[in-house]
Amino acid sequence: MPVRDGYAPWLALGRVNGLGGVGFKKLTAHFADPTRALFASASELEQVEGLHRDVIDGLANFSAWVAVEDELRRARDAGIDIVPFSDPRYPERLRAIADPPPCLYLKGALTAEDQKAVAIVGSRSASDYGRRVARDLARGLASLGFTVVSGMARGIDGMAHESALQAGGRTIAVLGSGVERAYPPEHEGLYRRIGEQGAVISELPLGTRPMAFNFPARNRLISGLSLGVVVVEATEKSGSLITAASALEQGREVFAVPGEVGASRSRGAHRLIRQGAKLVENVDDIVEEIAPQLVRRTGGVRQPPQRMLPPNAAEETRKIFALLQENSLQVDQVIERSGLPPAQVLEILLDLELQGFLRQAPGKVYSAEKSG
Amino acid sequence: MPVRDGYAPWLALGRVNGLGGVGFKKLTAHFADPTRALFASASELEQVEGLHRDVIDGLANFSAWVAVEDELRRARDAGIDIVPFSDPRYPERLRAIADPPPCLYLKGALTAEDQKAVAIVGSRSASDYGRRVARDLARGLASLGFTVVSGMARGIDGMAHESALQAGGRTIAVLGSGVERAYPPEHEGLYRRIGEQGAVISELPLGTRPMAFNFPARNRLISGLSLGVVVVEATEKSGSLITAASALEQGREVFAVPGEVGASRSRGAHRLIRQGAKLVENVDDIVEEIAPQLVRRTGGVRQPPQRMLPPNAAEETRKIFALLQENSLQVDQVIERSGLPPAQVLEILLDLELQGFLRQAPGKVYSAEKSG
Repeated sequence: MPVRDGYAPWLALGRVNGLGGVGFKKLTAHFADPTRALFASASELEQVEGLHRDVIDGLANFSAWVAVEDELRRARDAGIDIVPFSDPRYPERLRAIADPPPCLYLKGALTAEDQKAVAIVGSRSASDYGRRVARDLARGLASLGFTVVSGMARGIDGMAHESALQAGGRTIAVLGSGVERAYPPEHEGLYRRIGEQGAVISELPLGTRPMAFNFPARNRLISGLSLGVVVVEATEKSGSLITAASALEQGREVFAVPGEVGASRSRGAHRLIRQGAKLVENVDDIVEEIAPQLVRRTGGVRQPPQRMLPPNAAEETRKIFALLQENSLQVDQVIERSGLPPAQVLEILLDLELQGFLRQAPGKVYSAEKSG
Repeated sequence: MPVRDGYAPWLALGRVNGLGGVGFKKLTAHFADPTRALFASASELEQVEGLHRDVIDGLANFSAWVAVEDELRRARDAGIDIVPFSDPRYPERLRAIADPPPCLYLKGALTAEDQKAVAIVGSRSASDYGRRVARDLARGLASLGFTVVSGMARGIDGMAHESALQAGGRTIAVLGSGVERAYPPEHEGLYRRIGEQGAVISELPLGTRPMAFNFPARNRLISGLSLGVVVVEATEKSGSLITAASALEQGREVFAVPGEVGASRSRGAHRLIRQGAKLVENVDDIVEEIAPQLVRRTGGVRQPPQRMLPPNAAEETRKIFALLQENSLQVDQVIERSGLPPAQVLEILLDLELQGFLRQAPGKVYSAEKSG
């Protein structure tokens, strides 16, 4: 007898024949609680707009409850969490995509900070140059409080996770296989540390082996979790280009790091740039582009302009704000005049902007908001 | 007594105090023969729209005819030609800019083919990578019949000229000093070969030493002669960025070659790309962008579509045209199906397009024009 509450129905939705993220989204639009679809009659299901016949059959005939219960037990034993679509921990940005998974398997924890996430993806056979750039970008983003998302593959992905961890930041690995095991195996140690300091997630049932055909679908979760995707090295057939395409579909920013002409690993990134991806040299180039998006997301409405910093604001924050109340300044000028480390200046500027104290004009010129 | 005909008045215009290319352009708009300005009264000159007082004085008081005559003699002795603005050899594209020089000093020859010119410029302290890219682009352009324009400086410029010559193509060096002498001195041999197989030109009187302040003005001639400017390696303070800016002002295409992030030599090129310059990996990327401009220039009006090739068309041309009458094809497909060398295919496609036999759609898809 199936349980009607708890996680089981969510896991079950992930096992219904023919039901993918798009079909699931249709269920969420029709049922207040999409797991009700599992207990609905075929004629009830026929009312769901655009639901395919095979999905209706799959739902109506679903019977794999034993496997679901078994999986729940295995998850419990392995310390793996389940995050259903209805769970407040389910990442808000991922919930908004056209084909979200019914639930996520989670090793580690998802936090509110992870709303501020940027993906770094690239070639498995990365060059020293690519690794170095991935390292610098991941460190820089982590030190500004961004969560670094990637696919835990060899090469660029692994370097991105590793560098975020080393900078003391958060990182999320999205696997194209069951979340209970590290893939690739040589990333066992990395996998464990990500689980402790960030999150390893997957939409695939426990025990799913790493099959190449699962990777493109996985890539939509990498972009779906992120404000933007940075492609560091990619051949013209790289999976990173799929992640970039997903990002575009989902309305996320696409960034690409150039490299030497003639290197096949740069060709994918160069193609993206020609198609309109932003050319990235450093973290500034990324933050500049996504800061407005972060501002827009602050409750949907921008904070009213304020003139007074809160009484508990740090001395460095006061210093920078005071400078900008005198003059509009470019980032470089703020760094120079404040005498503070560039990374700290960038973080403070971003925070002040998000809180509505600063306004950013083109050319990275910041000025203090006037009180209303 | 000054000569009233021949080259002397043109050389004199180049020596009038305060008269630059912009002022000269005003004279061309007012006088059918701009050298008449030298013999006009101050009150006549006051009729010229927008002519500055100091230029009027400079023209009215011009007296350096001895120096001009002396220069003419030196030019004759050194085998240097003078190409006045009114001369049919004066490059048509250069004549169209806002501030053309009254005359060019020329070592070598300017030909009708030079209308199809592309500039390649970049850092004097180029890397091996930059030199390699400059070489490949110059060779490729030369083998497609483009004249390669540059500034004969060390590094990228020298490599561009050298490679165009080696590919049997034409090349034009624009100097920021008197045209009678090679600058830099180690390019003596290159200078001589360019004079034999192309042209060395300058707007500066003979004997002008290479002074840094003349180089920005020289750069407007490099872009002015060209359909587009390719920047290969450039720091953020590079003169190549001035050439790129001139190109934009003159409505010419700007191309930039990316490189590794973090290398200061790539920073200028990356900035250009972010500002909208086209990222270039190979000659195709350049030709694709300027082909429509070449077409527009063919008498101002596109040739009416034709279905029949002329009876004297080469066998390879017939083969490619036949392929495209069957199907629209991408360049790669044309190369594959024709079995011809890529450079030859590109040249034939370009020629057929210019002659109105082919139409190019986005994505480099070519198709035969239907007969009207």
